[in-house]
Formats: sequence, C-alpha cells, structure tokens
Amino acid sequence: MTEAVLAAHRALYDAVESGDADLMSALWVDDPETSCVHPGAPILRGTSEIVRSWVVLMAQIGYIQFFLTDVEVTTLPLGSGAPETAVVSCTENILSGDPDQPGGIAAATSFGAATAQSTSILVRHEAGWQFWLRHASPVMVSMDEIEEN
Amino acid sequence: MTEAVLAAHRALYDAVESGDADLMSALWVDDPETSCVHPGAPILRGTSEIVRSWVVLMAQIGYIQFFLTDVEVTTLPLGSGAPETAVVSCTENILSGDPDQPGGIAAATSFGAATAQSTSILVRHEAGWQFWLRHASPVMVSMDEIEEN
Repeated sequence: MTEAVLAAHRALYDAVESGDADLMSALWVDDPETSCVHPGAPILRGTSEIVRSWVVLMAQIGYIQFFLTDVEVTTLPLGSGAPETAVVSCTENILSGDPDQPGGIAAATSFGAATAQSTSILVRHEAGWQFWLRHASPVMVSMDEIEEN
Repeated sequence: MTEAVLAAHRALYDAVESGDADLMSALWVDDPETSCVHPGAPILRGTSEIVRSWVVLMAQIGYIQFFLTDVEVTTLPLGSGAPETAVVSCTENILSGDPDQPGGIAAATSFGAATAQSTSILVRHEAGWQFWLRHASPVMVSMDEIEEN
C-alpha cells in the first residue's frame, strides 16, 4: 500500500519533468475542494485550476528534474489496517535548466538549483491513490538560523 | 465536529499570541512522527522538537496577532459520517510588533505585516482533535505574477 502511495506521489514529479498534462490531471481527485500551494504562492482550489497552473508552469520550464529526499509516508487513521488517507512529506531538490534553451539537459547552458519542502495528502479513490492536496514551500533558512536571531 | 476542529486550530494561534507553551504542547499529538514546517524553514519532526521550536519563536516575539482568512475545513475520509482526520487550510495575516519593546501593542513603536498560507492536519485522538501536521509558507507572489513571467 505504501508502494502504491509512493508511486502516485512520484508520478506527479514525472508529469512535471515530462510536461505530461494528461498524467498530471489523472493524478488528482476531480473535485472543487482539492488544493495546491506552489512555493511562495497563495492557495489554488479546485482540480481544473490546479491542473491549469501546472500546465502554465510546465510551459515555462525548459528542463527540470526533482531529486526527492527524506520521503516519509504516514497513513491515517493512525494504526488502521485499511487507511483511506496518506500524508507524504519530502524535500524536493530541484535542478532546472534554461527555459529558452531547447534540447533538454544536453543543450542547456545554465542551471538553477532550489530546495522546497512539500506535504501532500493522497486519498484512496476509485482510480487508486490520488492527490487531494499539495503544499510546497521554499526552504530559505535553517531552524538554526531562526534560533540564532 | 467542524466547530471542535476549528476551536483546536484557532487555539494554536492563541497559544502563540499569548506565549502559552503548555497550551501549545497540549494541542499536538505526542508522537515522533508529527511534523511542522515554519515559513521558509525545513521540516521539523516529532512533538518535542516542534514544541521547542514554538517556544523559541515565541521568545523572540514581542507582540503578534494572527488574523485568519479563507479558513476551509475538509474531513477525511470524504463523505464519512465519523471522520478521524481533518484538514484545515487558511491564510494567516500576521501583525507583529517590535520584539525589543515590552508592553504589547500599546507600547510597540514599529510593526511588521506578513502573509502566510497554512495547511494543518488534525486527527481525532483521545484528547479530542489534535495537530498531526502543520505546514506554513510565505506568500510572496500571486499566481498572476507567475503566469505573467
């Protein structure tokens, strides 16, 4: 079950990397109450609005690759043998290439790196595990830095 | 039930505003798998670590007040009459005063304003609804700005 959750979770990043809007759309519960927070942005509600935002973002990206670390899955209710909710947290280590440079990584002449922290909620639905919510935020400071202030 | 979820959710902000570490501690499930993401920071795991971070943050704050807007509650499993998981999203409009100026709002000589987007997961536990996860992020850009780039 955890494997099915992780496969659906990873597929979101595959969809962005390959610019596959149909896959992205299929990964979300089709509901006006779903939500997505892109790093630094306000919340978006509703699957059509969320998928549209991903299509816009994918259109602006030349090359992007996500290296996920510290991936943790919790299923809810806690201790249930048949959970219907899964929470996935991970650190997204993002490598992106020059959007004006076609041809992918081999042709890209400049790269950017960024780190984001993401929380996703997936629910068990007719079509398997699907995204109900994703909240990603930029990692700009360490807690040590906060505590030192 | 939604009222009980919202009361527990609001109590977290009351705890920060009043610097009440005991209340903050009581609001969280006591578990090493709980998690908290402060705006711009990496994830913290485990209730003792999370409460410690709040105590540090509260010690650095002179005056703070949270005006919550766009508060939305979803209970999971979807359609269940006895949900055990609640997801609360809201926009945090934050007013804070000079940390070096004692005496609260009447004495504060400078104020800062900030906006954050937060997602919280609360679970129904022995003690009522308690926080399992909170993820807050700075709101720095609008989706319109992203799309205009």
